[in-house]
Amino acid sequence: MNIVLLSGGSGKRLWPLSNEIRSKQFIRLFKTDHDAYESMVQRVYRQIKTVDSQATVTIATSKAQVSAIHNQLGEKVGICMEPCRRDTFPAVALAAAYLTDVQGIDPQETVVVCPVDPYVEDDYFEMLKSLSDQAGKGEANLVLMGIEPTYPSEKYGYIIPKSAEQISFVDTFKEKPSADVAKEYISKGALWNGGVFAFKLQYVLDKAHELIDFTDYHDLYEKYETLTGISFDYAVVEKEKKIQVMRFGGQWKDLGTWNTLTEAMPDAVIGKGILNDNCEGVNIINEMDVPVLAMGLHDVVISASPAGILVSDKEQSSYIKPYVDSIVQQVMFAEKSWGSYQVIDVEDSSMTIKVTLNAGHSMNYHSHKNRDEVWVVLSGTGKTIVDGREKCVQSGDVVTMRAGCRHTVIADTELKMIEVQLGEAISVEDKQKYELRVEEK
Amino acid sequence: MNIVLLSGGSGKRLWPLSNEIRSKQFIRLFKTDHDAYESMVQRVYRQIKTVDSQATVTIATSKAQVSAIHNQLGEKVGICMEPCRRDTFPAVALAAAYLTDVQGIDPQETVVVCPVDPYVEDDYFEMLKSLSDQAGKGEANLVLMGIEPTYPSEKYGYIIPKSAEQISFVDTFKEKPSADVAKEYISKGALWNGGVFAFKLQYVLDKAHELIDFTDYHDLYEKYETLTGISFDYAVVEKEKKIQVMRFGGQWKDLGTWNTLTEAMPDAVIGKGILNDNCEGVNIINEMDVPVLAMGLHDVVISASPAGILVSDKEQSSYIKPYVDSIVQQVMFAEKSWGSYQVIDVEDSSMTIKVTLNAGHSMNYHSHKNRDEVWVVLSGTGKTIVDGREKCVQSGDVVTMRAGCRHTVIADTELKMIEVQLGEAISVEDKQKYELRVEEK
Repeated sequence: MNIVLLSGGSGKRLWPLSNEIRSKQFIRLFKTDHDAYESMVQRVYRQIKTVDSQATVTIATSKAQVSAIHNQLGEKVGICMEPCRRDTFPAVALAAAYLTDVQGIDPQETVVVCPVDPYVEDDYFEMLKSLSDQAGKGEANLVLMGIEPTYPSEKYGYIIPKSAEQISFVDTFKEKPSADVAKEYISKGALWNGGVFAFKLQYVLDKAHELIDFTDYHDLYEKYETLTGISFDYAVVEKEKKIQVMRFGGQWKDLGTWNTLTEAMPDAVIGKGILNDNCEGVNIINEMDVPVLAMGLHDVVISASPAGILVSDKEQSSYIKPYVDSIVQQVMFAEKSWGSYQVIDVEDSSMTIKVTLNAGHSMNYHSHKNRDEVWVVLSGTGKTIVDGREKCVQSGDVVTMRAGCRHTVIADTELKMIEVQLGEAISVEDKQKYELRVEEK
Repeated sequence: MNIVLLSGGSGKRLWPLSNEIRSKQFIRLFKTDHDAYESMVQRVYRQIKTVDSQATVTIATSKAQVSAIHNQLGEKVGICMEPCRRDTFPAVALAAAYLTDVQGIDPQETVVVCPVDPYVEDDYFEMLKSLSDQAGKGEANLVLMGIEPTYPSEKYGYIIPKSAEQISFVDTFKEKPSADVAKEYISKGALWNGGVFAFKLQYVLDKAHELIDFTDYHDLYEKYETLTGISFDYAVVEKEKKIQVMRFGGQWKDLGTWNTLTEAMPDAVIGKGILNDNCEGVNIINEMDVPVLAMGLHDVVISASPAGILVSDKEQSSYIKPYVDSIVQQVMFAEKSWGSYQVIDVEDSSMTIKVTLNAGHSMNYHSHKNRDEVWVVLSGTGKTIVDGREKCVQSGDVVTMRAGCRHTVIADTELKMIEVQLGEAISVEDKQKYELRVEEK
């Protein structure tokens, strides 16, 4: 099975655990068999590999998420990086070109596209295989998954099938309705449109060439920024006549808000937290080092990270976005391909961060125009290179770097350090990258 | 007026803002005229000086609080430091000896003793003057303040006066009663015992010599640790026949729990915090740099500090102590006589703190046996002395100190720095202090 996972989202609804860099799918909230926590993207990837160990998985995503994906899934996963955000039609077109031109997949093979963030069980991925097989038969150009509704939701689009059979041609599509209208649709056998569909690669390549003037993947990548944003549903699905839907009646949850997310949490408390006996329906998700103590609360979610602290009635938590929009703050933590960092102190003309490099990884060789930096190694061993000069480092070593000087650190073991940034105009934008010449390595 | 303020308390009830070092009276929660925040001890000291600018104020307290008192009230305030905690009779006896032998106050002068943490207005301090004047008349050996009860509290002891006049001899004292019994007392004209009393200095000196074998202040200080803990009420007040009570009907609040404290807060939010429109009766007291967002809560207090995060129903907040007892953690922030520090990162074999030295102040000259340290100066200017060698420092300068080496820093302007502590056994106990020889200064 060839599967493309669409990984988007800005992550404001799950503040303070999500931010511009870390969308909800990267938060480690779900328990694995061995008592650790995994994120949605890790869970989905693991589930796909369980159902089909030979599956080719490609994640279509933005530049901002690439580091986090490599950090969570390793370096081997296929990534189709969008140079900028342009909605789902350009994203699927780029992924189709990537699969053909970069991965060398035969255009006659089938591909399944699905969002990266449904909270589902293995039967969902078995259904994706059926979807793929059905698309391979050629009865229809597109085969959609239709999710059997559990309530008259106003949040989803609806698919009205021609029949109530497991596989049916589609009669029509309906936009997100009011609850009353949704009830009417459901009485007519409507299904939720979860944004999952399968097709032969050639079909989407043809559609892409119809609507966009490009030669191959690289050409499309280059002109991506000039494309108009348009959804795959609008550009393709709703116009297609030869289109089928397959019913899915298994568990399917869209964990987009704290309210729905906490329902799927295996433990009431993740991280350091205490609930007293008078708490009912309270969840604590605490990514800070210090404890949260909750007393006498009902149906409340408490979430803390280096970015801030949310305390919300669960129902109310779905209205969080405008409040988060009003909070102007820099990114306080991030996962990078080489490890992670966290801001631990901010002053007018300094910022102090804690950096964790994974064993065998290194930062880019880079310099800053407007700030000096000091590294103090806390633990681990590695090598720093500053203006071409190598130095082995370990706990207690200090490296000072003036503005303009080129520097990197390479971790032999996991390496933790404090980085003090000093200057009047500290910004993540102030970064110039360089190739490390061989004699510098 | 000579006034002794008793400053005690371990501060668990106002976790996470209070801890072993910072009792509730040092938390800056009350608004001053010029829109800054002051602590209870600052508020009380300011109020005393407003009512009687010539008042001699002595704070009887433990060693752990001395730095915070100097930091909040300056170096001029009198401090009678208890070498260890031994309840109020030894504390008052030590204070009486201190006033006589160190401050040189005539034993015929009167002294008023009162707790440092009542939330009151200026009329309370006017009443202290009356109490002092009344004690000076010599009609009684002790003159107590009796607070007119506002409800049948189970938290206070009661004083039953002989008459309902403004000044009356005391008939009897009653221990903390049940609410029903309290109602009965109140119907008989009982008053709350707020622990405020005035006397001629000689009276308490005599009582002290009666019960403790000592010569003068220094002798008493030396043998303080051998004394038995006993309250002044039990040792003196309840046994005294010549004792009067003066009624006080003004505002008097005992802000010992989050529930009562938030009632006195001038603003619903102190620090970075957002309440949405569906919040009612919610207070945020946030000493962290990141925002707290509260949504759809009712009668909840949220408090955050580098030590942790409390989210509690206001009623429930009075039952906090056993939960805080269960949280084992090091002190994460403290005010010192020279400034303050805050723990910003903890690892197995390192700890990183942010240090702020006030202009003109310096740390003790000291060394550590089991840890190396690195200082990175963030802002300000000053001078470091490491094993006798002086160095002027400013933003960006780095000083490294091996275990065993003696070091200090002297701030010319306010000086902020990051201190990284490195070692297997990091402890606040690991500190050896030295005199700075003149040629080193």
